[in-house]
Amino acid sequence: MAKVEVVSIASREDCGALDASDVLAPQREEFSLNDGQIYLDGNSLGPVSRSVKARVNEVLNAEWGRGLVRSWNDAGWSEMPVRLGDRLAPLIGAKAGEVLVADTLTLLLAKLIGGALAQRPDRHVVLTDVANFHSDLYIVQAMAARAGRPVSVKAIERGELEGELSEDVALVMLTQVDFRSGEALDMKAISTQVHDAGALMLWDLAHSAGALPLDVTDAGADFAAGCTYKYLNAGPGAPAFLYVRKSWQGVLENPLPGWQGHARPFDFEYDYAPANGMQAFVTSSPPIIALAALDGALDVWDHVSMEQVRAKSLALTDLFIELVDARLPGVFEIVTPRDHAKRGSQVALRHVDAYGVIQSLIEHGVIGDFRDPDIARFGFAPLYVRFVDVFDAVERLVDVINTESFKDSRFATRHPVT
Amino acid sequence: MAKVEVVSIASREDCGALDASDVLAPQREEFSLNDGQIYLDGNSLGPVSRSVKARVNEVLNAEWGRGLVRSWNDAGWSEMPVRLGDRLAPLIGAKAGEVLVADTLTLLLAKLIGGALAQRPDRHVVLTDVANFHSDLYIVQAMAARAGRPVSVKAIERGELEGELSEDVALVMLTQVDFRSGEALDMKAISTQVHDAGALMLWDLAHSAGALPLDVTDAGADFAAGCTYKYLNAGPGAPAFLYVRKSWQGVLENPLPGWQGHARPFDFEYDYAPANGMQAFVTSSPPIIALAALDGALDVWDHVSMEQVRAKSLALTDLFIELVDARLPGVFEIVTPRDHAKRGSQVALRHVDAYGVIQSLIEHGVIGDFRDPDIARFGFAPLYVRFVDVFDAVERLVDVINTESFKDSRFATRHPVT
Repeated sequence: MAKVEVVSIASREDCGALDASDVLAPQREEFSLNDGQIYLDGNSLGPVSRSVKARVNEVLNAEWGRGLVRSWNDAGWSEMPVRLGDRLAPLIGAKAGEVLVADTLTLLLAKLIGGALAQRPDRHVVLTDVANFHSDLYIVQAMAARAGRPVSVKAIERGELEGELSEDVALVMLTQVDFRSGEALDMKAISTQVHDAGALMLWDLAHSAGALPLDVTDAGADFAAGCTYKYLNAGPGAPAFLYVRKSWQGVLENPLPGWQGHARPFDFEYDYAPANGMQAFVTSSPPIIALAALDGALDVWDHVSMEQVRAKSLALTDLFIELVDARLPGVFEIVTPRDHAKRGSQVALRHVDAYGVIQSLIEHGVIGDFRDPDIARFGFAPLYVRFVDVFDAVERLVDVINTESFKDSRFATRHPVT
Repeated sequence: MAKVEVVSIASREDCGALDASDVLAPQREEFSLNDGQIYLDGNSLGPVSRSVKARVNEVLNAEWGRGLVRSWNDAGWSEMPVRLGDRLAPLIGAKAGEVLVADTLTLLLAKLIGGALAQRPDRHVVLTDVANFHSDLYIVQAMAARAGRPVSVKAIERGELEGELSEDVALVMLTQVDFRSGEALDMKAISTQVHDAGALMLWDLAHSAGALPLDVTDAGADFAAGCTYKYLNAGPGAPAFLYVRKSWQGVLENPLPGWQGHARPFDFEYDYAPANGMQAFVTSSPPIIALAALDGALDVWDHVSMEQVRAKSLALTDLFIELVDARLPGVFEIVTPRDHAKRGSQVALRHVDAYGVIQSLIEHGVIGDFRDPDIARFGFAPLYVRFVDVFDAVERLVDVINTESFKDSRFATRHPVT
């Protein structure tokens, strides 16, 4: 059986040297990772850090354990959604008082979509990307159906935006980094285009926050939301964040109001009156244990800059692409853009049996994931992924591809999703 | 200065004897409570238990720490909303497959209200209680405004229900135990009345679940929701639960759909297709750390029956009422019904300076809470409140009332809410 041709390129020693001079290398010690396993799925779920464990246990033992109900005031629990929003704000280029942590990404999108549609009452179309994450597609359709007027959702191809931006478009909702391909969109150029058409711009930053530098302020984004369990490492199903540009606060209404977003929550007034600022987007009592995990997870960002993260991210993904090109020529289509400006922090490889490839890699200790129908997806989180990990991952990928079951895999039947 | 007259009644020794023979007494050891403090606010936030701490740390260290993203399958994370719903179901008289844990109470009410209104398209009124919890009032108004047809919310006095149940009523939403007064409503009688009028019945069980035996099945409730951070002790802002009667599943639509409620979440289909059963009411990835806390908190219910809890709850509240009557005659109006059938697990005392009374009590180590405008509220959670605690709490209440600042308190100006 013919082996895949091997071309000399970056060696493992070269990779070790890169790690030795990596300013982010010490951060890896903060995270819980398994010996011998290469974790390239931080774009799905980041690992737990020491500070997350410490902060959660501080809540369990002291704040909740001893402070009990008094901690809503004494430990600042009531302010956590806004305080953690302020902590997170610099990571997306927002100002203090423009970000809130609450609920889940899809529910926050519901709040923003519902609020935004009410601000363009004479318009009847929402544009989104046909390749958008599916939860975004489901919630935008659901909220459009409840807008109080006919609103249609049009899911378009990425190149069609300019042609579709008619005077009937109320809102454009796009995900900045594509969850499958890892392609990054130009927030500023697109937001400007959307505003020129009189529409509002909502960005999903799920695969962006903590992965690359963002500037929602300079981009002119109206609204944004994202999750904290990927590159921000706040834990499975961690609360999400939303951004509402200052100029929209007090204007945009929360379509899912609750007592914790009321201006006077303990006056128990019959009618809803929104609190000032981001607090108006809180619905219920905030999930303190989950927020504590996020609080701990954000500690690492006190010690690193997003520019350092971005530089290493591009170096890691460049290396991975280079090694896959060299070691496995023609086996995969590299879907992720080679152009740095268009790349998030993941690399997607297309293969007819991507499902099987990922399953085998997992058995070989490399954790990536499969995205239907034919994408093998690898996330490179610069806080804990090393250059030697990239090298070793590609070596194991070579081993997997060279096994009997995959050498003719481009003709194989696709495995069912399980 | 004249002391309040003291009448001989249950002594501290009597109370000690009651504790000595209390079958629930050993459960107190499971909870984190402060020495010398009497915690009568478990109806706002229950205390942390050993099993909560253990289960959360199991997730942090093992499931998330070592299993990482694989734990969505390997540790059963994806099934937690349904599995914990099944664990919780017996506490409200539901069957397995009828309860789900997710999101927050107000957001779950949004799902149920939105879904329910679509099932009575020819009707235009929602009835609720003018004394309902305010978050319920805000969300029902918001969802009525997005029903796709004119729907008005009518908040009525408790005695007016029969007269208001016209053929135009789509939905009745009531809270079973009043958050201020502690009055418990008859779920079966009211649900039957509502059904006779062709309307649907939605119960808020926030102050009921874990506090008294419930039987949503026998009551004929269509839908219910409640929170887990009060008598279920799952932690500040813990996820909420919702109940959808089996016959409504596959019929009732989730108005806030997301990928985790899709029939095939990893097929990434463009259109939403609901999963079978309760899973359809999940929107986003479930909050695993918070769910783990609930998982641990439910352990205690494996060892106790709701009948034991109810018997002790009534004994505790009877004792409190009896002691307040005897030791502080005429000082408070006892708002909570003396009739067992109409009582939850709290006692509300009306006093013109209830705010000041509660503040002073807290300084004296008795944690109750104030509810605007004039209610001092005391929760009696039978899993950890002792009979001697009730005795001591009333003694401290006597001390507080006998201080200079409160002896003429019925003429004092009410303190501002802070």
